[in-house]
Amino acid sequence: MTSTDFITSWRQVEQIGATEAGGVERQAATEEDRQLRDWFRGFADQRGWRTVVDGIGNLYALVDLTPGAPYVLVGSHLDSQPRGGRFDGAYGVLAGLHAAERLQDHFAETGTAPRYNLAVVDWFNEEGGRFAPSLMGSSVYAGLKDREEMLDRTDLAGVTVRDALAAIGYLGADEPPPAAGYLEIHIEQGRVLEREGIPLGAVDSSWYTQKLDIEVLGEQSHTGATLMEDRRDALYAASYVIIAFNEITGEYPPRSLVSSVGQIVVEPNSPIVVNRRVHLVGDLRANDPAIVRDARDRLVARCAEIADAHNVEIIAKDFDIRPNLYFPQEGVKLQEKVATDLGVAIRPMQTMAGHDSIAMNTVAPTVMMFIPSIDGVSHCERELTLDQDMLTGLDALTGVLQRMLDGALDGVEPAERY
Amino acid sequence: MTSTDFITSWRQVEQIGATEAGGVERQAATEEDRQLRDWFRGFADQRGWRTVVDGIGNLYALVDLTPGAPYVLVGSHLDSQPRGGRFDGAYGVLAGLHAAERLQDHFAETGTAPRYNLAVVDWFNEEGGRFAPSLMGSSVYAGLKDREEMLDRTDLAGVTVRDALAAIGYLGADEPPPAAGYLEIHIEQGRVLEREGIPLGAVDSSWYTQKLDIEVLGEQSHTGATLMEDRRDALYAASYVIIAFNEITGEYPPRSLVSSVGQIVVEPNSPIVVNRRVHLVGDLRANDPAIVRDARDRLVARCAEIADAHNVEIIAKDFDIRPNLYFPQEGVKLQEKVATDLGVAIRPMQTMAGHDSIAMNTVAPTVMMFIPSIDGVSHCERELTLDQDMLTGLDALTGVLQRMLDGALDGVEPAERY
Repeated sequence: MTSTDFITSWRQVEQIGATEAGGVERQAATEEDRQLRDWFRGFADQRGWRTVVDGIGNLYALVDLTPGAPYVLVGSHLDSQPRGGRFDGAYGVLAGLHAAERLQDHFAETGTAPRYNLAVVDWFNEEGGRFAPSLMGSSVYAGLKDREEMLDRTDLAGVTVRDALAAIGYLGADEPPPAAGYLEIHIEQGRVLEREGIPLGAVDSSWYTQKLDIEVLGEQSHTGATLMEDRRDALYAASYVIIAFNEITGEYPPRSLVSSVGQIVVEPNSPIVVNRRVHLVGDLRANDPAIVRDARDRLVARCAEIADAHNVEIIAKDFDIRPNLYFPQEGVKLQEKVATDLGVAIRPMQTMAGHDSIAMNTVAPTVMMFIPSIDGVSHCERELTLDQDMLTGLDALTGVLQRMLDGALDGVEPAERY
Repeated sequence: MTSTDFITSWRQVEQIGATEAGGVERQAATEEDRQLRDWFRGFADQRGWRTVVDGIGNLYALVDLTPGAPYVLVGSHLDSQPRGGRFDGAYGVLAGLHAAERLQDHFAETGTAPRYNLAVVDWFNEEGGRFAPSLMGSSVYAGLKDREEMLDRTDLAGVTVRDALAAIGYLGADEPPPAAGYLEIHIEQGRVLEREGIPLGAVDSSWYTQKLDIEVLGEQSHTGATLMEDRRDALYAASYVIIAFNEITGEYPPRSLVSSVGQIVVEPNSPIVVNRRVHLVGDLRANDPAIVRDARDRLVARCAEIADAHNVEIIAKDFDIRPNLYFPQEGVKLQEKVATDLGVAIRPMQTMAGHDSIAMNTVAPTVMMFIPSIDGVSHCERELTLDQDMLTGLDALTGVLQRMLDGALDGVEPAERY
């Protein structure tokens, strides 16, 4: 068996759900997600790998090398944001498939078997754009979220995760493979590697993050016939909340906090009606947990002031709190060793974005790798990573995976659960 | 034939699409709208009145009294806002049906025939909550809007007016009755009559109104991985636009201008994505056209400043401009005469809200009547008008209608077209 060309595969994958402006739209459990999952399954079938789907829609290709052994999982996610980029998630899964193919060839050619089996994984709903929360599939795998509760979550049209997965044929009932380790490669989604001209990043930690679920409750009335002083306009008040989320970052040292509101639902949202209710989700991230906590407290206090000033009620609830998380130093060192062997530069770095590796890091020795993003942009159609950087990442991923299959991270403790 | 009890009919009508909190939800061309239209048709069938539906879904019950004569139309609209009130629109249609029944009995008993025939009308989509613009059916009837263009309009789910009307069985092909006059009674949706303890208002004019269609264009990016200074956040910028629409009213004399944003569509509206596009509809109303025009100019200038400050593009377009409109003084005097005959107080007044009578006033002698609203609230579930006020309104409506059928407003010129 000879290895297929990664770039040939990539050109196929980037066509699925392609948008006119060069991005992709493959939200979780949509038709486009199904098409790419079917493509993944076709890739596995051609190589004789068994595929299984667990009860939260995670899809695994099992490359059995050593009968009865647990699995080193390698992968990422195939879903995208609405009008998202081609590289976010899909690169990591595709690199995982090709690394697995290379290593299967290697073990066949050398007549050797590693300590562990290998599974390539597509985690369900990493993005959280259609169904909250994000990192859904990996968090259920890791036992951080309850499967039944996640299956009951709905999108803005009221469709449950359960029904959406069943509709595309990916609500499985298979046992997921037990993890001896987890490895993921992803685009950086920032500018550090590009600015420094370094092709590889070894992620050593993630930022502290939390979300705030905010409900603004006013009273519905007629925009034409209601005097301004009689109004209790939920959208007007919510506008001050959105501004507060953005401007609070100026109260801390430069680049120490990012904060925004991404999702807003307005009721009744009719042109000539004063809105009665706004629901919005705010997002706070910093390396220093004290900054996130302080910003959160200031925002909650500001919501109370806004509620008073505009005669509405504002209810703010914390959710999705993720502590700083440190990836094992042994994994960072392993990446540096592989990069040195390949003769390419690497640097340790942080991630500001969430990844499935953050959930997996709580259950198995986990390695997270980055490759550069042009202009650092992501979650948009002009997201771009060059072919050469993808290929360098694939070589490094293959090297790290081979050593993990041979037990290089045995004995490393998983991180504390959150 | 004996007249049925108005209150008995009313208790039936207010059950259709009833919400738990005492309102109704019967948006245009929904199942609830269909149910109430079927009820209207049943009322007409029982009395032997023919019903016809025109090509924009307006529903007419024809009470033929004088073969071959044109029709005095009486009515309002049966659709409601999302979680709207029971009285807005439905009261006027039901009062029209009962006034028609009383007058049919009267002419039968006296063996006389009036100059004109009578038609009770339910105008399609007065509210504009599901499909913009509002006053859709009456504006097409009056030739102010193009029927085909209106049939192509879509709701937020992408359903066209054409498909929605066909789905409920109310996309008709009948010729609408020619109008010799138009008469409408409606709840005030303000506090004037309640405050003064007067049961009837004779509407003599309407405010100058316009809408602004505003598009805010930023760039989609990752909320976690994008530095604050690199963002082009359309929702953040739109929040300043919403605030500007509300606060501009403070720059003019008290109560001279109302202004707000009722509808907002956000893309991609995902919790961890900076939004690329916001579309919103702003609404400006004043008695003095110069105030609306000045406020419009200031808002457009402010949008340009906001666009500069937040590195987004903002496109503002005028639409739905409705000039001050004066109802015929002859109609106001006619109402005063009928009220005097009934021994009840009446006062001339303005309307800040739009009504189907504003469109009809451009094609036929038009009379617009108000009855009180408790607390002046409307477009909300706690909208309330007392039974006694509805019955007084019905008596006055019947009196005005009888005189219009006999030609009391013959020779009155319609208002200028807008």
